[in-house]
Order: sequence, then structure tokens, then C-alpha cells
Amino acid sequence: MSDVSDWWRTSIIEMEPGKISFRGYPVEELIGNVSFPQMIWLMTRGDLPDENQAALFQAALVAAVDHGPQAPSIAAARMAVTCGLPLNGAMASAVNFLDDVHGGAGEQAVELYHMIDAAGGPEHTAEILARWQEKRTKFIPGFGHRFHKPVDPRSPRLLGLVDEAAAKGVVSGRFAAIGRAIERTLAETKGKAVPMNIDGATAVIYAELGFPAPLARGLFCLSRSVGVISHAWEQMGQGGRNKGPTPPSYRWTYDGPPRVPGRIAPKDNQ
Amino acid sequence: MSDVSDWWRTSIIEMEPGKISFRGYPVEELIGNVSFPQMIWLMTRGDLPDENQAALFQAALVAAVDHGPQAPSIAAARMAVTCGLPLNGAMASAVNFLDDVHGGAGEQAVELYHMIDAAGGPEHTAEILARWQEKRTKFIPGFGHRFHKPVDPRSPRLLGLVDEAAAKGVVSGRFAAIGRAIERTLAETKGKAVPMNIDGATAVIYAELGFPAPLARGLFCLSRSVGVISHAWEQMGQGGRNKGPTPPSYRWTYDGPPRVPGRIAPKDNQ
Amino acid sequence: MSDVSDWWRTSIIEMEPGKISFRGYPVEELIGNVSFPQMIWLMTRGDLPDENQAALFQAALVAAVDHGPQAPSIAAARMAVTCGLPLNGAMASAVNFLDDVHGGAGEQAVELYHMIDAAGGPEHTAEILARWQEKRTKFIPGFGHRFHKPVDPRSPRLLGLVDEAAAKGVVSGRFAAIGRAIERTLAETKGKAVPMNIDGATAVIYAELGFPAPLARGLFCLSRSVGVISHAWEQMGQGGRNKGPTPPSYRWTYDGPPRVPGRIAPKDNQ
Amino acid sequence: MSDVSDWWRTSIIEMEPGKISFRGYPVEELIGNVSFPQMIWLMTRGDLPDENQAALFQAALVAAVDHGPQAPSIAAARMAVTCGLPLNGAMASAVNFLDDVHGGAGEQAVELYHMIDAAGGPEHTAEILARWQEKRTKFIPGFGHRFHKPVDPRSPRLLGLVDEAAAKGVVSGRFAAIGRAIERTLAETKGKAVPMNIDGATAVIYAELGFPAPLARGLFCLSRSVGVISHAWEQMGQGGRNKGPTPPSYRWTYDGPPRVPGRIAPKDNQ
Repeated sequence: MSDVSDWWRTSIIEMEPGKISFRGYPVEELIGNVSFPQMIWLMTRGDLPDENQAALFQAALVAAVDHGPQAPSIAAARMAVTCGLPLNGAMASAVNFLDDVHGGAGEQAVELYHMIDAAGGPEHTAEILARWQEKRTKFIPGFGHRFHKPVDPRSPRLLGLVDEAAAKGVVSGRFAAIGRAIERTLAETKGKAVPMNIDGATAVIYAELGFPAPLARGLFCLSRSVGVISHAWEQMGQGGRNKGPTPPSYRWTYDGPPRVPGRIAPKDNQ
Repeated sequence: MSDVSDWWRTSIIEMEPGKISFRGYPVEELIGNVSFPQMIWLMTRGDLPDENQAALFQAALVAAVDHGPQAPSIAAARMAVTCGLPLNGAMASAVNFLDDVHGGAGEQAVELYHMIDAAGGPEHTAEILARWQEKRTKFIPGFGHRFHKPVDPRSPRLLGLVDEAAAKGVVSGRFAAIGRAIERTLAETKGKAVPMNIDGATAVIYAELGFPAPLARGLFCLSRSVGVISHAWEQMGQGGRNKGPTPPSYRWTYDGPPRVPGRIAPKDNQ
Repeated sequence: MSDVSDWWRTSIIEMEPGKISFRGYPVEELIGNVSFPQMIWLMTRGDLPDENQAALFQAALVAAVDHGPQAPSIAAARMAVTCGLPLNGAMASAVNFLDDVHGGAGEQAVELYHMIDAAGGPEHTAEILARWQEKRTKFIPGFGHRFHKPVDPRSPRLLGLVDEAAAKGVVSGRFAAIGRAIERTLAETKGKAVPMNIDGATAVIYAELGFPAPLARGLFCLSRSVGVISHAWEQMGQGGRNKGPTPPSYRWTYDGPPRVPGRIAPKDNQ
Repeated sequence: MSDVSDWWRTSIIEMEPGKISFRGYPVEELIGNVSFPQMIWLMTRGDLPDENQAALFQAALVAAVDHGPQAPSIAAARMAVTCGLPLNGAMASAVNFLDDVHGGAGEQAVELYHMIDAAGGPEHTAEILARWQEKRTKFIPGFGHRFHKPVDPRSPRLLGLVDEAAAKGVVSGRFAAIGRAIERTLAETKGKAVPMNIDGATAVIYAELGFPAPLARGLFCLSRSVGVISHAWEQMGQGGRNKGPTPPSYRWTYDGPPRVPGRIAPKDNQ
């Protein structure tokens, strides 16, 4: 019997009839006594953050909830409910979209910060950026925004909170320094501002608080799910059936071969 | 141009370059000043809850994060990462599972409470339960648990918090009364305890706070996603490739027709 | 050990090292000797269709592969790959959208045909349509098209193949008669043509061939997946990152409360 | 208006009211005259295969439909329907699992074959295998099977069909030669048989027929979806609610910190 139970072993949750504990804490003591962000931290990491850590953590969760219906994830959520999906299905569809390109920048930014940190800190920024572009991709994750120019309004606010936390000794501040070094280096290299965006700023917070890179993506998914549910629910109220991406009258441009009837010989005995 | 923009109209988010606001609140004022549960409330409903409302709300979010790897959603998340999916894909797969049976009980319980409330309150419980079973399903959503006997440890704790909130005038307490009336009625009818479970208890909170029924499902998805990400992340650490539901040595019982070779005539000219 | 194996019991596939059989047929005898549509039939139903049945079956599968990028499923597939998802993720996202409204009409049409058939056949059409609209929904599944007016080009072709098959004794033709009776009845009731669409026509075929209603949805998902993969793959070639539903310059119409800064009191010690 | 239509441009499908064509072929001429595999080929590639190409192609589609409920994808499909999901949701959940590890081997094998072909053919196998293991992963995609020893029954049958097609001039046979060279090289290197598995064998076919590597994954998803739907449908018949991975009596092994009550100070005013 133990091989079957062992197949699903976990250190997260312990259960017997009438008893549930998470990471060793009885559930009835967590309920009402820890905040939702503290619970997210406990579940993903195994320990409880203090109030200051939790406050900085939740600032990142608050910041990334939504970026409007032109984001593919939000559009997907809104279309999904008009296809008949309930909120779980709409949320699943939207979160699935938060892959490498749409939802991976935060994770990649934490990786990049860790690389710079491991190399010795901000003065190694240019060298690590070059290595990133050579080995990974030309996109520097977490910097630049095609829409919010010159500044993404969320980033300076989040960095300001990191500075406050660093001043209080809650975090070290060294990943904020790394983030700012990237911003400076990119501005010099490109000759124009390539400011830190929401992914770069939340990645600073996740790195400061000690979250490993892949969890940055998971936490972004949690955060963006709030917008997803809100938009899906609003769309349910607006109604619609099989909502497509554009009003039906627009259709799409066809650029394939011309319609030529009569090229297929009918089968004799199908 | 306006028909295209109108196709995606929303009252949730307003944006121009360098400016984002949610429900009329500038994002940089929300970050650092509202809690994550307050943000969830603002996004889904349009207004900000006070601290007491937010505290009760977050108790429900904390309570439902996980029920272990025998829950299909959690098992799915753990299997998913061993198939190569990143955390967004694991979360999408798991949340998709939170459909009518696995994740719909909270939504249905809110509906049931509203029906009893609309009928005049707790004294109409038996009558409405009978109607529910006739029109909807024999399962009374939110009550009974195949594992937690005699009591689901989360429910009395959550109801206690509702009572405290009612005593302070934060909520009316009438949905707690309805929930308890269902519990009493079921005990009388069945001759044994059918105690309120996590879905019934969180539904009391969501109903007390004025959330419409479908959002109860959405909020459960948000809450359970915390466990999903935690288990998926733990599984990434454990490793494994193509993790199946049981250790490979077990295989499955085959109960179909016997293997009979030689029944298909080879095609001549395929 | 047997309770674990029994938990996953199936009559579809039998396996031991070096041996695989489906429904009793050795896999190496199926490969190269049965067509893909025959295999789909065998797997879902347990027996092999003859060539005539398979030919009619595959006409339905061929007919429903795609309806262009304004269909939410196809749009989702195209957006998905620009978010970083590989083809499996794009296909999953798209197929998830084929729910009650977008992908359920075929299943519902088979149900409706069965109701009319059980009531005694075409002469009971008006009565059953009324009951459907009273008990289920005002939409008559499988009839009418907002775009293809006056005729969906796939339907008469598919019905013609059913007629040929009925003439040869492959099928009875009674569900084609029911489908045409619905078309006539709707034309009389509404005073205008409400022609059978692709879902109504494929449902005739699935009903004629004896597929239960829920499989009609599954088969539609299989068929539409062909278009899904094709569009996702084409989009990969076109490139793009985070493709939204409309060109970025359009944005959306905001119809919520005006942006009012300064309403949130900063927290003292968060 | 054209920028909106251009945003969704495609060369796959052309539509106007009452007219649909795919790759230039009117839909009503395709229905009943081309097989489902031919349609899959036309949609993904733009041209119609002849009967011999289509026959080889469909052998690959037939071969990969299912590998039993211990495959995570199939287990997911079966669990999904017990959570309340319809067949589209079950299929979406399962196909999502067919990612790099579970569904990517065919795609990777095509890539590997192309690398060997580009290097000059079978005699460069050892060198390219070494490069693959250095640059990509230690797993050689498409070879070895933890269950089917010594031989995967599908592979020799599929290779036999490739040989027949090569003898008729339908394909060149050079990717079959490459596949066999890999098998020989691995046997020599490892000192034991590491036979070609289903992914390696279907990859030979897809490479012979000219499908680009990523489509090998998409085609595997299509093929495996047949098993997915079959198992989901069978599970619907078996019933069950919230089917977990093991019988409920097994639970899981907990290996985390011990349960210690009393460590969280209740909040004063939450």
C-alpha cells in the first residue's frame, strides 16, 4: 500500500478525518489569522512571512491584475464565456495563455537578476545583458513597453515600496539596484529610455523576497487571474454568443490561392 | 473605428500611455495601499470593501486553497509539470477541472441560500431543499463530506468568523442562519449528521458579503489556484517524467473483449 | 493491488510488454489496414464500421474542420501561439472553447432528433420543437446561420450523401427526414428560411450512424482541431508576440466611472 | 477597415455568405470526395496528397491514438469528466498535457532526423547524437520505452509500411534509414537494445512525407485525441464524482513538518 501513497507524497498538506494542516499549521488556526498573501507565501514556500514581507509581496500581486482586453489572456476570458464556459473554464483558458511570451517575462527577469547578482552585482550588468542576448533571446525581459511611454506607472511605485522596505531592513535592496542598473545600461546602449515594466518591477520584489524564478510566473498567473475573472464576469453580464475578436462585419483578409471549382474527381464508390 | 473599440468595451480598466486606472482608481494609488483581497473585490465588483469586509472575505480565500493530491485538480497540476508544462499550463489544467462537480458546489450553495432567503428565510428550508432535489439534483451543495467526519474543520471556524462579523454589524448573519437551518434539516431528514463543508461555509461568507453566485465559483478557483501552484512547484522539485496516476507497476484492469488476431483483411493497395 | 488497477479499468485498451490491442484488435493489424475514421469509430464505439459507414462518417469529419478566424476557437488558437504556447497548448485552448454555445449545437441537435424520433417521427416536429424551447432554450440547435444566407453550403452536400447512403441501405434515412421536417416547420413558423447549418447536418449523420449525442460534440472537437492546428501553425509562420484581438491602435471603449485620484488614504504601516 | 481585417489574414479559408473554400477548394467538393486524412493534409499544408501518401500518413494517425489510462493525458481526460466537464473540456485538459515531455518526442525526433540528414545522412548519426545530447537533452527522442521491451509493436509495422511506400517511390526512404541508424548506434553505444518507439516511428513517416517538425506534435495531438475522447466517454458511462488518481482509501504520504498547533497569535481586530 505504501508505494501507492508514496507516489503522491507531499510536504504541503496533511489530512485525517476532521483534521487538515498546511505545512504543519492547523487550517482552523490559519483561517482568520493569516492574510491571503501570507497564505500564498506559506503554501508555496513553507514558512509564514511577517507583516512587512507580506505587505511588499501583496503590492506585487495587486499591481499585475489586469492590462485590459487587448491582452490575449483577457480577450480569451471574455470570448470563452460567450462560448458557454463557466468561470473556471474562462480562467483556465486565459491562464493557459500566460506562457513564455505573455506570462514568462517576470520569471525570466528574476533569472536575469540572479545572473547579474551571481556575477557580482550591478557593475556586471552590461556583460550579463550581452550574454543573455547571445544565449537566450534578444528581448531583455522586464524592460520596455510598447504602450506605456515614457513610463509604466506601476514600476516607480513598486520600486518606491522596495526602497521603503530596504530602508526598514525588510529586504536588501540589491535586486532593485540591479533593476535600475539594467534600466541605465539599456538607456545608454540604445540611446533612448527602455524603462522597467510591470514584469521587471514585480520581478525585483519577488527576487528581493527570495522567490525562485519559476514561482514568479505562478504568482503572475494568480494575480492576472483576478482581472480574468472580473472581465469574464463582466462579459457574462453583457451577453453575446460566440464573440469573435472583431465585430462580425469585418471578417478577415484572405491571401491564399483563388477559389477554383472542379478540380477534385468525385469518388466512384464512397 | 468606434465599433471595433466598442466591441471590447469594459468598465473595469481605463488606459492611456503612462496611465492605468481600475474602476476609476489610479493603479499607483492602489499599489501599496489596498490589500490583495480588497483588490479582488474592487475588480470583480467595482467598489472597495472596508477592512472588516475584507477580513471576512479573505478568511474564505484562505480556507479553500488545497485539499491534497487526491483532488483531481491537484493531481492534474502535479502530473502536468511532469509532462513539460510550466506553471501557467499546470494551473490552467487544474482550474479547468473545477467545473460543476469539483468546483461548482460553492456557486450552487449560494444559489440555494438565495432561494431560501427569497422564500422568506430559514423556516422555508425543508420546502426549498425538496424543490432543489426535484428540479436540480439530489446532491445538496455544500453539505456532507465523504472524508471529514463528523466535522469539516474549516466550517465551524468560518461560521464563527461570520458570527463575529454579524455581531459587529459587518454582515447581517442571515445566510449563516440559513446554512445552519439546512444542516439541522438534513440531520432530521437523514437521521444522521450531514455537516456543512468548505463549499457551504465559504458560500455563507460570499452570500453575506453580497457576491453573486457565479463569482463564488470564480473565487474558489482563485483560492484553489494557490494549492495548485504549490503542488505543481513541489512536483517540479521532485522531478519525474510523464507521472501517471499510479506507480507504473500497477497498470489497469482490462475488461473488454479478448484479443483476437487475424480478423482484419489486409488492404490490397493501400 | 487489484483495487488500484480496478480504479482505472477500461474496455478500450489492453497492454502487456510488446503487445497492445484496442477493443480486442492487435495494434499492428489495425495500422495500415483500417482508415483513421474507422479507427475513431472503433475506439469510441467498440466495433469496426464497414467502408460505406466509414465514408459517410468521414464526410462529417471533413465538413466541420474550420470556419475562419472570427470563430472564437480559431482566434484563440492563433493568439495562443503568439503567447508562447506550442501546438498542444494552442489546440487545448481552442478546444476548451467548444463548449455548449460554440461546440454544443451538434450534440443538442442529436438529442432533439432523438426526441422527435422517440415521439414517433417527423409529424411530431412542431410539438417537440415547442417543448424544446420551453424546457431547454429558445435556440433550435443546428438551424439558422447568421452568416451563411440563404444556405450553408455544407448542409445540402452532407444531406445528399445521407440520401445516397440511405438508398444503398447503409442508413435508414429517418434522421434526414426529421432534419428536413424541422427546416420546414421553422420556415412555416417564422415565415422565413431558417436553413439547416453544419451542426444540424453533421448531427443527422451522427444520428443516422448511431452515435450517442455527447459523442457528436467530441467528434466536432476532433474535426475542428484540424482547423485549429492549421491556423496555429500558419500564425507561427506569420510571427507576432501577444497578438490581441484587434490591432493595438484600436484599444477599447471604457464605460466605467471616471478616474478620480486621491481617494485612498495611504496606510501608515503596511 | 482593412487594418482590422488584415490583422486576421489567412491563406487557409475564404468565405462569403453561402460560400466556403479551403486552400482554394470549395467545401462542397471536398466533402464526400477527400478522406479525413487528406483533409488534414490539405488544411495544414495547402495541397492535396495522393492516395499513397494519404495511406502512409493515416497509418501514423491510427498508430498513436492511445496508450492507456496510466498516460497522464488519458488519466486527465477520465478525471475531468467526473469533475463535470463535457467532452470538449476533457479533450482540452488532456491535449494540454501533450507538452514537451509527453507529446514533444515526435517533434524532436523529426528535428533530430533533419539534423542527421542535413549533416549528410546515416553515417553522421553518432556525431549528431552526441551533439544533441550536448546541446539539447540526454534523452534521444523517439527511442527506448520503459514498458514495451524488447520491441514496441507499432514501430516495425510502421517502418514496414514506409519500406513498402519507398519501394513504390511514394517516399525516399532516407528517414527510415536514419531512424534505423540511430537504433543501431544506440545499441552499440549502450550495449543493449534501445528500440525505436511510436514517436520515433511516426516521426519517420512525418519526415518522409515532408511535414515540418512542429506539425508532428500537432498531428500527435490529433491522433491521441481519439483515445482521449474514447476514454472520457467510457468514464462518463462508468460514472463517478471527482475521481482522484487512486482509490480514496490510499491517501498520500505526508513528509512535511509535524502538525504543531498554537503557533499563530490570533489577530485582535481582523
